[in-house]
Amino acid sequence: MLSVIPLTGLPEVRPGNDLAALLGDAVERAAGLEDGDVLVVAQKAVSKAEGRVEQTDDVVEAILREARAVRRRRGGLVIAETKHGFVCASAGVDRSNAPGEGWIVLLPEDPDASATGIRAALGDRFGRHPAVIVSDSFGRAWRQGTTDVAIGVAGFEPLLRLRGTPDGRGRPLENTEIAVADELAGAAELVFGKARGVPAARIRGVALTPGDGAARDLVMPKDRDLFP
Amino acid sequence: MLSVIPLTGLPEVRPGNDLAALLGDAVERAAGLEDGDVLVVAQKAVSKAEGRVEQTDDVVEAILREARAVRRRRGGLVIAETKHGFVCASAGVDRSNAPGEGWIVLLPEDPDASATGIRAALGDRFGRHPAVIVSDSFGRAWRQGTTDVAIGVAGFEPLLRLRGTPDGRGRPLENTEIAVADELAGAAELVFGKARGVPAARIRGVALTPGDGAARDLVMPKDRDLFP
Repeated sequence: MLSVIPLTGLPEVRPGNDLAALLGDAVERAAGLEDGDVLVVAQKAVSKAEGRVEQTDDVVEAILREARAVRRRRGGLVIAETKHGFVCASAGVDRSNAPGEGWIVLLPEDPDASATGIRAALGDRFGRHPAVIVSDSFGRAWRQGTTDVAIGVAGFEPLLRLRGTPDGRGRPLENTEIAVADELAGAAELVFGKARGVPAARIRGVALTPGDGAARDLVMPKDRDLFP
Repeated sequence: MLSVIPLTGLPEVRPGNDLAALLGDAVERAAGLEDGDVLVVAQKAVSKAEGRVEQTDDVVEAILREARAVRRRRGGLVIAETKHGFVCASAGVDRSNAPGEGWIVLLPEDPDASATGIRAALGDRFGRHPAVIVSDSFGRAWRQGTTDVAIGVAGFEPLLRLRGTPDGRGRPLENTEIAVADELAGAAELVFGKARGVPAARIRGVALTPGDGAARDLVMPKDRDLFP
């Protein structure tokens, strides 16, 4: 069985807060960590702790500054490629759940490093290193609505490579890579609730491949990107 | 807590099988249904039960027949729009987990109707109507790997509309629609395992909006599709 529990009781995160300590307290309230646990942390909490917030009356300037390239623009909607290589609305710049009116939240500079830091701190505290995912809500091409995806990972391989393993009939699977990190981020979102102020979840019961994977492994390389 | 359990012990599904009865048996082995449960069923099982399989030595012909439009083509990779409006590789035509060598599996003709039929049959049997999702593994623009998404739904609204509800600070959320059906499909995939022959899962502990939603609600309308 896979279980996903919300990590509740975290305070509103502010710049300079020790997010790993706050998460650790919430993990303790939720009866701790076991080997193989996955911790999913919403990007907003990570960005705020890292001071990636600013007060501005020119959101578009901030979006263009955060973007490496603008892919599409229609009315107020800007689909941009971030410096990390992610393609998303507004280059990840968001006014929701910001520190105040007129404030915006930017993506972490290096979300893989954020995840790695949280993993190390929780490993020190609990004697077990969880897999860690920093997640954000991204829109998709062709489909309505957002799903949460992994923008930072630590401690596992975000892609499960099944190519060549046999299917139910023994035929080798073709071209099969499953973005398990994104599926885990989406599962966590189901217990977050944007309006409920729950920025993290613990997932138990999934068999991941340990490793030094990074969320950039999830970014489609330019030469294979058919929708530039 | 959200829990996802695999529904095990289903036989290899064959054309003409009563899939809802097989799923019902598996649900009984898994201690039944509660109000609010979600059943996620892999498209392959649905397609096979509905006879959407064929033997062919011309997979490309089948892909073009299943497609309403080809969006991109590179080498053997065809990104196509299906008759349902989904954009995916090979218009959903797949040789993995097919009934035999030289066989292919096509998407169900009407996956929302498939989901509705399963929901009705399980409702009759258990006295409770689960939400039902028919899921398939789709690639994404800009991101590596597949995630499972909903291609058929019954009994709930696949998009959670949060626009206007307050964020943690009381500021109304903007443009927020969460594709909960896709997040649920992805969560179920984590317990399926393509190679393990588990074609269904039961999810408990998620608060969905009851309704007559359809997977076509998840398809981006043409006039808003920025990546045609």
